[in-house]
Amino acid sequence: MTTTDATNHQVRLAARPTGTPTPDVWAHTEEPVAEPGEGQLVVRVSHISLDPAMRGWMDDRPSYVPPVGLNEVMRALGAGEVVASSHPDFPVGTHVSGMFGVQEYALSDGRGLLAVDPSAAPMSTYLAALGMTGMTAYFGLFDVGAAKQGDTVLVSGAAGAVGTMVGQLAKIRGCRVVGIAGGAAKCALLTDELGFDAALDYREEGLARRLREATPDGVQVFFDNVGGEVLDAGLTRISRGARVVLCGAISQYNSRERVAGPTNYLSLLVNRARMEGFIVFDFADRYAEAAAEIAGWLREGRLRSKEDVVTGSVADFPATLLRLFRGENVGKLVLQIA
Amino acid sequence: MTTTDATNHQVRLAARPTGTPTPDVWAHTEEPVAEPGEGQLVVRVSHISLDPAMRGWMDDRPSYVPPVGLNEVMRALGAGEVVASSHPDFPVGTHVSGMFGVQEYALSDGRGLLAVDPSAAPMSTYLAALGMTGMTAYFGLFDVGAAKQGDTVLVSGAAGAVGTMVGQLAKIRGCRVVGIAGGAAKCALLTDELGFDAALDYREEGLARRLREATPDGVQVFFDNVGGEVLDAGLTRISRGARVVLCGAISQYNSRERVAGPTNYLSLLVNRARMEGFIVFDFADRYAEAAAEIAGWLREGRLRSKEDVVTGSVADFPATLLRLFRGENVGKLVLQIA
Repeated sequence: MTTTDATNHQVRLAARPTGTPTPDVWAHTEEPVAEPGEGQLVVRVSHISLDPAMRGWMDDRPSYVPPVGLNEVMRALGAGEVVASSHPDFPVGTHVSGMFGVQEYALSDGRGLLAVDPSAAPMSTYLAALGMTGMTAYFGLFDVGAAKQGDTVLVSGAAGAVGTMVGQLAKIRGCRVVGIAGGAAKCALLTDELGFDAALDYREEGLARRLREATPDGVQVFFDNVGGEVLDAGLTRISRGARVVLCGAISQYNSRERVAGPTNYLSLLVNRARMEGFIVFDFADRYAEAAAEIAGWLREGRLRSKEDVVTGSVADFPATLLRLFRGENVGKLVLQIA
Repeated sequence: MTTTDATNHQVRLAARPTGTPTPDVWAHTEEPVAEPGEGQLVVRVSHISLDPAMRGWMDDRPSYVPPVGLNEVMRALGAGEVVASSHPDFPVGTHVSGMFGVQEYALSDGRGLLAVDPSAAPMSTYLAALGMTGMTAYFGLFDVGAAKQGDTVLVSGAAGAVGTMVGQLAKIRGCRVVGIAGGAAKCALLTDELGFDAALDYREEGLARRLREATPDGVQVFFDNVGGEVLDAGLTRISRGARVVLCGAISQYNSRERVAGPTNYLSLLVNRARMEGFIVFDFADRYAEAAAEIAGWLREGRLRSKEDVVTGSVADFPATLLRLFRGENVGKLVLQIA
């Protein structure tokens, strides 16, 4: 099978952003689709995952993964179909997910690829509940946060990709779940559709008071995706021995100032509590176990994979990414390549 | 035995301080020494412990213990001798430590009292290495910090009561130990007398660079007594899976501004590290075990109880307390009643 005639459109990181990524940090390029060599394959990418973590990958500083190099194709998780293959495990027609980048065709040696079943779930769901988003929620809540029945779980960025999963997983575990999100519509979604016990709009006045009322027994697990003032508000409600799970800090990623550290961090001291960060990649050897459990809950209707699928071309990636930082998405933001 | 003729001089909290406690927040009172009723005893206090935590006890806000009430005798750990007793376990002549307050004589029902042996160690040592200071260092380092052989342990406030203990205990455990302290004299003490591998003066320029050089393998345990910029500096050096032990934040206790939260807290995320607070009281059922182990190390000469003993009267308590916040003490600050 050949892909010789196709053109691969790509989005590359042309410059490092200061603050919010502006259009000029991106370069739109095209090149012929590569031919797979021995042990290689080519994926036609149908879905690209948009994640807050991408902002960190764009900065040139040490982190849990190397930064995206200048003029490299922007790093991104994606899903698609194998269209050319000299790899025994991934024949043409196989549907896969993996780190394909922001481009239409990705050459791969198969490492890190997962075969997925498009008849069992929409392809976008393999980037959401059944993908890294679901894994992040599952291991962050159950392993790092050690959430157990009867706990009150507070989740910030609750209407986002990971937040919608964390809240639902916590309900399945038998927790009381309080979400913090931006805007009345998101809050209504959390309580009316996803089973949250309470949802608080951080844009409204009196967050501290409303949070106090919504957590009469304190907070045993605080899953923070946001940082800044929301993290500080949550820290006022943690109870003795609480676990604060650091998953992200979307409020800070585009800051041109110093990151705002949690003023209320001494609440950890008086409450003998811990704040702990994690990176989902560390749990890779248990993804299959988690995915199987999540798939079961999806089938039983106990869990919904909330997805916000934008249809377009790879050229729409830069503008779509900004929706994350403006809080415009509900659930997992995915760019579907038309 | 009677104590009828003696007068008990006391220091009471007369007003809540804003920032650094000024003389007017204290009241100096006297009253007749109480007669012990059935099951009670009276201690003549010979040594009073001065601790950074006292500043927190003076504020009227929820914490791990109730605030000291207005016009109550200031809360303080102390040591002394039983001078009147109707308590079967603590006859006259017994030496004891306990929460006696800033006063010359304390009435007690025996709860929370420990009998101590003045022939085995100086009385001040029962407030230092063999007292709450030693317990704090021991459980904070070994239990919360999980320090193990080969770890690099960073300790801030390293020349203070807890800091001098943490560094020495870490050396006994086989760790590399780096201390942060204020001034060349303290730093020299740490390396020359207490066996620290390196000591950094935070008042000198270039702390970040010097810290990087002193911790080539990163920091696996960061025992923080200081908060503020020192906490932020340490967070830049933590390695994957590190434990940041929150013991105190002496740089922040007298702040009239908001507490400075750790700007570099996202280092916890990328390093899958945790920051955890603790209160030594939670380990009360293991004090005897820890004290026995520490006593052994003292006898063997592997550990020194660094004490800064000021001789005076209870009226000297307010001025002596301020020495802590100016960083004038080396080791455990104790007021010995003349």
